[in-house]
Amino acid sequence: LDYDDATDIISQLSEDDQKEILEEIDEEDASHIRNLLNYPEDSAGGLMNTQIIRINGKLTKKEALDEVIRQSEEMEEFYTINVVDDKNHLVGIVSLKDIIKAKNTIRIIELIKADFVYVKAETDQEEVAKLISQYNLTSIPVVDDNMHLLGRITFDDVIDVMEEENTEDILKFSGVSEDEELSGNWKEAVKSRLPWLIINLGTAFLAVSVIRHFDDTIKQLGILAGYMVMIAGMGGNAATQALAVTVRRISLNDLTDNQAYRTVLKEFTVGLINGAVNGFIVLLFALFFDKNPMLGLVIFLAMTGNLIIAGVAGSSIPLILKRIGIDPAIASSIIITTFTDVFGFLLLLGLASKLLL
Amino acid sequence: LDYDDATDIISQLSEDDQKEILEEIDEEDASHIRNLLNYPEDSAGGLMNTQIIRINGKLTKKEALDEVIRQSEEMEEFYTINVVDDKNHLVGIVSLKDIIKAKNTIRIIELIKADFVYVKAETDQEEVAKLISQYNLTSIPVVDDNMHLLGRITFDDVIDVMEEENTEDILKFSGVSEDEELSGNWKEAVKSRLPWLIINLGTAFLAVSVIRHFDDTIKQLGILAGYMVMIAGMGGNAATQALAVTVRRISLNDLTDNQAYRTVLKEFTVGLINGAVNGFIVLLFALFFDKNPMLGLVIFLAMTGNLIIAGVAGSSIPLILKRIGIDPAIASSIIITTFTDVFGFLLLLGLASKLLL
Repeated sequence: LDYDDATDIISQLSEDDQKEILEEIDEEDASHIRNLLNYPEDSAGGLMNTQIIRINGKLTKKEALDEVIRQSEEMEEFYTINVVDDKNHLVGIVSLKDIIKAKNTIRIIELIKADFVYVKAETDQEEVAKLISQYNLTSIPVVDDNMHLLGRITFDDVIDVMEEENTEDILKFSGVSEDEELSGNWKEAVKSRLPWLIINLGTAFLAVSVIRHFDDTIKQLGILAGYMVMIAGMGGNAATQALAVTVRRISLNDLTDNQAYRTVLKEFTVGLINGAVNGFIVLLFALFFDKNPMLGLVIFLAMTGNLIIAGVAGSSIPLILKRIGIDPAIASSIIITTFTDVFGFLLLLGLASKLLL
Repeated sequence: LDYDDATDIISQLSEDDQKEILEEIDEEDASHIRNLLNYPEDSAGGLMNTQIIRINGKLTKKEALDEVIRQSEEMEEFYTINVVDDKNHLVGIVSLKDIIKAKNTIRIIELIKADFVYVKAETDQEEVAKLISQYNLTSIPVVDDNMHLLGRITFDDVIDVMEEENTEDILKFSGVSEDEELSGNWKEAVKSRLPWLIINLGTAFLAVSVIRHFDDTIKQLGILAGYMVMIAGMGGNAATQALAVTVRRISLNDLTDNQAYRTVLKEFTVGLINGAVNGFIVLLFALFFDKNPMLGLVIFLAMTGNLIIAGVAGSSIPLILKRIGIDPAIASSIIITTFTDVFGFLLLLGLASKLLL
């Protein structure tokens, strides 16, 4: 077990249990783990392993190889060798291959890469994952504010972080709080989901008040209630489609202003076309079953309008949230569909009361 | 550019363009790329790089080190050394560190690990990602059916695959086909999303026909249309919550029969509680605004019932799909919310016509 993984396990325990365990194990192991417990779990410090190969840049090839072999005895695996100065400041990294290929008279400091990537202990784990993935690194050194070498984070930790972040994203997107464990019990699930449902209930009262306003219209033409549900539902689904594509684009690459503008324009076009096609199908249906061409026209217009609103809201709301520094996945379908409910009802019932009655 | 990445780019071109480019570049490079083009893009063969360190197990320490240094000249980075016999059969892997630490008289074959992980060229990329993540490998060798060494897949390819699969999951989950590129234009978006919306339109006609059946009930009590929308919407959201948790559980670890049973039971309980709490809030609302206790009771029962249905459907449908071999993410909210629409309407309008009129 690596120190970083051991620390993750121990950090789940109560403080008393932590203390007890740390007193029982080997003193050196305990001090490594105590150090790691000081960093937040989702920071580079919380993710790093302090078992690391570090050699002084002044060493010769032979001395360095001996030192690497000595240090690697206690280690499962290592990928890069960290080169430090006399005061443990990180000055570069070097690979075992480069040392072997070097001339015998060389000093290690001459072998190091001029630019290398590193992170601070307080860097967020998502940022670490991005760097490791972008530069295809097997490991990345972690330093403090004064460039003292603290530890390393390896690619396998990052793979775990990515799985975790992706689970969080899909749950948040669906209105489940990020701290609901997938294997948790019903109490945890209620605690995580009920607040979102109550938020939705609050916004649904808004939709109900729109309908209450058109009470007479519905009483005169009951089937409007059916088409109302259809148009609101289709709007909700179209908004979720636009939302998913936009949220995913934001999390994979930050969009420039121009790209953001074009994204919203694209979703407007998609909403117009998908709305018109579906509206036309329902129009034919209304002609055939309800024998009411005007009703068909009202439905066609309401469907097209609501799917345009869905596309624009589904793409612009997460972009705005991102801009003001809120996680765009929070614009979950739960919130965004209220938009299309309210506007769908207003469009259909408003048009119906003007054109039909 | 590695061969695997170059192949990915070239595979996007038309066959004529591919041919032209392959004729223009260096013959050795072209033959590497031609080989890789034979494998499906999402298989281990499509993902692998054929530039690889391979040494014969009979070599001595000195010979092996010379050979590794010679082969690594042409290579950006390598992580493990593949050991083969005279016929290029893979017999094991060894690390550079192990060779350096070994006695001078040793044969490489004596250093190899007894059990090592490898994949066949036709293995699916998701399976490769799982192995690399599970065993914390920097790279995994790819072999043909006769254990001939073909290439290697490195962890950075797998990080890309994981991002890709996760994008696919969240899009599929939201009713967007997996082949819509995030940065695609509106034509591509319409093509990918319209079919799902039309499926949803088809199922919505089902919901409309339920409402048509209760036409008289709605005409007598117009506000029912409002509560109808509220209860169906809440059911849809609750179903999406249960669906997200279950789909994610399935994709991270396969559930046993017993766990599957307990998952559905848990979602039943969650639906019961969340439904009763929300139902009670609306009951108070109906008492206050509509001054109709019986209407309040009907809403309470319909909300509770529909959220139980949402929990059971949201968890059991993906489990059943998984069992019969269909990707559970296909049970996207688009399909599963129809369930809660239809049952929500049946419950509310059915109860209302029995108890209220």
